Amino acid sequence: MSYQPVMIDGVWQQAYEPVDYFVATNPYTRESLSDCFPVSTFADVDLALKAAQKAVMELRTISPDVIACFLEKYAEFIEERADELVESAHIETGLPEEPRLRSVELPRTTDQLRQAAHAARDRSWCHATIDTKMNIRSKYSSIGPVAIFGPNNFPFAFNSIAGGDFASAIAAGNPVIAKANTGHPRTTKILGEASFEAVKAVGLPDGMVQLLYRLKPKDGFKFVSHPMLGATGFTGSKKAGLQLKEAADKAGKPIYLEMSSINPVFMLPGALEERYREICVEFFNSCSLGAGQFCTNPGLVIMINGKTSEKFIDEVAALFRETPEEVLLGAEGTAGIDRAIHIMQQHGAELITGGKELQGNGYSYENTLLRVPGDMFIKNPHELQTEAFGTVSLMVIARDLDQMLSITNKLEGNLTGCIYSHTQGEDDKFYNRLEPLLRAKVGRLLNDKMPTGVAVTPAMNHGGPYPATGHPGFTSVGIPASMLRFAVLQCYDNVRQHRLPPELQNKNPTGKMWRFVAGKWTQADIIHKG
Amino acid sequence: MSYQPVMIDGVWQQAYEPVDYFVATNPYTRESLSDCFPVSTFADVDLALKAAQKAVMELRTISPDVIACFLEKYAEFIEERADELVESAHIETGLPEEPRLRSVELPRTTDQLRQAAHAARDRSWCHATIDTKMNIRSKYSSIGPVAIFGPNNFPFAFNSIAGGDFASAIAAGNPVIAKANTGHPRTTKILGEASFEAVKAVGLPDGMVQLLYRLKPKDGFKFVSHPMLGATGFTGSKKAGLQLKEAADKAGKPIYLEMSSINPVFMLPGALEERYREICVEFFNSCSLGAGQFCTNPGLVIMINGKTSEKFIDEVAALFRETPEEVLLGAEGTAGIDRAIHIMQQHGAELITGGKELQGNGYSYENTLLRVPGDMFIKNPHELQTEAFGTVSLMVIARDLDQMLSITNKLEGNLTGCIYSHTQGEDDKFYNRLEPLLRAKVGRLLNDKMPTGVAVTPAMNHGGPYPATGHPGFTSVGIPASMLRFAVLQCYDNVRQHRLPPELQNKNPTGKMWRFVAGKWTQADIIHKG
Repeated sequence: MSYQPVMIDGVWQQAYEPVDYFVATNPYTRESLSDCFPVSTFADVDLALKAAQKAVMELRTISPDVIACFLEKYAEFIEERADELVESAHIETGLPEEPRLRSVELPRTTDQLRQAAHAARDRSWCHATIDTKMNIRSKYSSIGPVAIFGPNNFPFAFNSIAGGDFASAIAAGNPVIAKANTGHPRTTKILGEASFEAVKAVGLPDGMVQLLYRLKPKDGFKFVSHPMLGATGFTGSKKAGLQLKEAADKAGKPIYLEMSSINPVFMLPGALEERYREICVEFFNSCSLGAGQFCTNPGLVIMINGKTSEKFIDEVAALFRETPEEVLLGAEGTAGIDRAIHIMQQHGAELITGGKELQGNGYSYENTLLRVPGDMFIKNPHELQTEAFGTVSLMVIARDLDQMLSITNKLEGNLTGCIYSHTQGEDDKFYNRLEPLLRAKVGRLLNDKMPTGVAVTPAMNHGGPYPATGHPGFTSVGIPASMLRFAVLQCYDNVRQHRLPPELQNKNPTGKMWRFVAGKWTQADIIHKG
Repeated sequence: MSYQPVMIDGVWQQAYEPVDYFVATNPYTRESLSDCFPVSTFADVDLALKAAQKAVMELRTISPDVIACFLEKYAEFIEERADELVESAHIETGLPEEPRLRSVELPRTTDQLRQAAHAARDRSWCHATIDTKMNIRSKYSSIGPVAIFGPNNFPFAFNSIAGGDFASAIAAGNPVIAKANTGHPRTTKILGEASFEAVKAVGLPDGMVQLLYRLKPKDGFKFVSHPMLGATGFTGSKKAGLQLKEAADKAGKPIYLEMSSINPVFMLPGALEERYREICVEFFNSCSLGAGQFCTNPGLVIMINGKTSEKFIDEVAALFRETPEEVLLGAEGTAGIDRAIHIMQQHGAELITGGKELQGNGYSYENTLLRVPGDMFIKNPHELQTEAFGTVSLMVIARDLDQMLSITNKLEGNLTGCIYSHTQGEDDKFYNRLEPLLRAKVGRLLNDKMPTGVAVTPAMNHGGPYPATGHPGFTSVGIPASMLRFAVLQCYDNVRQHRLPPELQNKNPTGKMWRFVAGKWTQADIIHKG
């Protein structure tokens, strides 16, 4: 047993009189791992907030170039420690080393950090807007210390101290206080070490990155609503997310949540007629990716009653039966899936295949397919939209197109929604009626493509209507847009030129930064008059 | 007595079994006006929401050009009915016809509508972002029906059916359900008529603009949290705002609030030495503008103990004493000022002049100046930041610069903060220490300029940290930025070209719209490959 320290104000130190300790579990063996991590009291949060506030003041005179260097240096350090990270993440999460952890998630993580570095250096993200006539100028600026709560399913790419939220918050100029996901604390600690080494290497303030592992719920609520905090980024369960949201909302503190999504996929009749076998494989691959533990996992498929739909279901069911299950992230994984399936069954869904926890060394659950008639879905829409975080999907069989539209109207907010349609336009009439309804329910609308695989591009929206997230105007993936969550709008009215932040002075600070001047986006300097 | 109708789904109709009726008051005479306006039950809200939802679907095939035409037509109709509007607003609010209502506020209102028309037609506001390689495209899109609650102090420019929130919500493509301010219902009705005439003139859906006058609080909460609603814009009291916020937050519905602000003004010693007489006049003019009933009214002045500060206070006090008071908006105005002054007095503030309601025909309150030592302010910061909505200001006398900084740290979130400093740089050392602290507390930072007069420019931020508003990332004045409050981020992933909204298709729909393509802002078409 070793008692692991937290990182506060540049020092790896034992938590102050911790409430308790916890250990992570190896999902392959169900055995506890040896490192003990502290459950901090609010004393640790308080120290971290003070150090972060100090960092905020120091950051005012630090160029975004230094922040960019930090992000790049950090990406390098992650690559240097790749073996250790992959091994640790594999043991703590059960996710395969190859290709998932080493060849997919780790490069995605370093790529995000480098994109964030580019955005910080480029500065265009801050939307500098200048009215030269009135000498009124505004831009987005850093919001202050950001608390980040990371999820269990991406130990690198959404890690609280290395993932997309972290990269966006830092690139926007904010210190981060990371709250580790308790599923992979050792992986998070290694990332914490690498990040702090990068902080020292480039000379950022000590309070720039700090790391705690766990808090009592009441201390979490106090954290996200604290006057010294700027904002919170959270990815995780709806239950925990909504509790944190309530606390933050009461204090008027911005909180950005990514909570739950079942990602409906609509199979229009022409598409199935044309290529149901092909779609079947696409669907299974997407649904079983990462043992189904993706926020964009396709958990609901809607199709119209008919022979081809039945053939599609049969083939999907065969794949579900034949393909060996992967290990889940932990005990809560199997229990959660079981709960969700039971709720669906109690509300009219029938099991096609699966439905049981697997007995074996590791945590695992049968690939599970369910079906329900459209009438029943419309009767119990809430319960039949219970998220099952695994290789589980519910097939909804609509009577006809009209019923498919009624089903769409019953959908809750989701991150994504897909429509598969005939390539030569045979479904276009259907599509045109369906799309307006689905569009209103999802953050990202796809054609003929499964929802997993969230590309890190400026055009991405990994967001959507409540309860998929807490606000439909923001994305947590895609730089620079994701940075706007951790920014405030600041205006300078009649402020003397030399007192303006460089981004708002007449001279373009990089020579390339995009600014909105007199109604036009431009990279030019502003010609000084008088 | 005449019973006035509400406007629902294109029909001026009597409210359905209203809870009650109310009348407005002429602040000059304290007499009730003759028109009776209904307090609606939720039945009216429900009908309005359904009509608005219908409009949302119809709007999908209506070009933004039609919306632009509506806004322009509406501006014309307002100008045509200017005499009637000015007369009505004058009677209901007591604000002077000239210059305020006719020559300042009315042109500001039509200018806002025309700027919004321009933004709708231009389309650049939606930040179309296109990744051509991956065929992932995103933009901000309309959020759905918007509820707007207008304040009492600007019967035109912030009116729920004509003001900045209305213009932004409509220009972003949303139907509006306006909840009139009960201080000026007849003015609002005239605007409602003009707006609906413009709706008919251009052929927008009937549910595009609808008007209710008053709701019971519980129905207001139900309204802002309703599944059919997109978002809410609210300008008014902190008390009402926070109650609505709680209801909307619980339902995950965006709500944008502009609630309260005392707009601190810092007088650095060199500035007072250099030009205290000049500043004194500037300050009084700003503080007494609109009888002090501006959200950016300078209610707090911070200066350092000394002879010049005392001379400044003496001159300000003389102006406060000598200048005749104007009529306030209503009975709640005098009562509210009285309450606020008493709270400040109970917590250490001393009266310099004023402090009493004026006896006379109209609602009026003495111009009131108070002072308090810095020590006392630091001891009771919350109470001494009570907003008094009138020609009232509290002078805080700091012992020295360090205490001025401590005072700044005690400030709550404000819309604005001003620093007056020596023109030749003698205060620059002071400024450099003060600015970082003040910057974090305000949405708009000014130099040598009073906070009233919120220019309608894209660079404006009429927003700020809580509790001045509900979210520090948004502005309620300044087009196009204010439109983003009433928008959601929508992504299209692999969607076929002809199914994309025009703004995201390869061809630039206006030839001039700005889009963010491959990391660059451009007005060009996208060259179709393959």
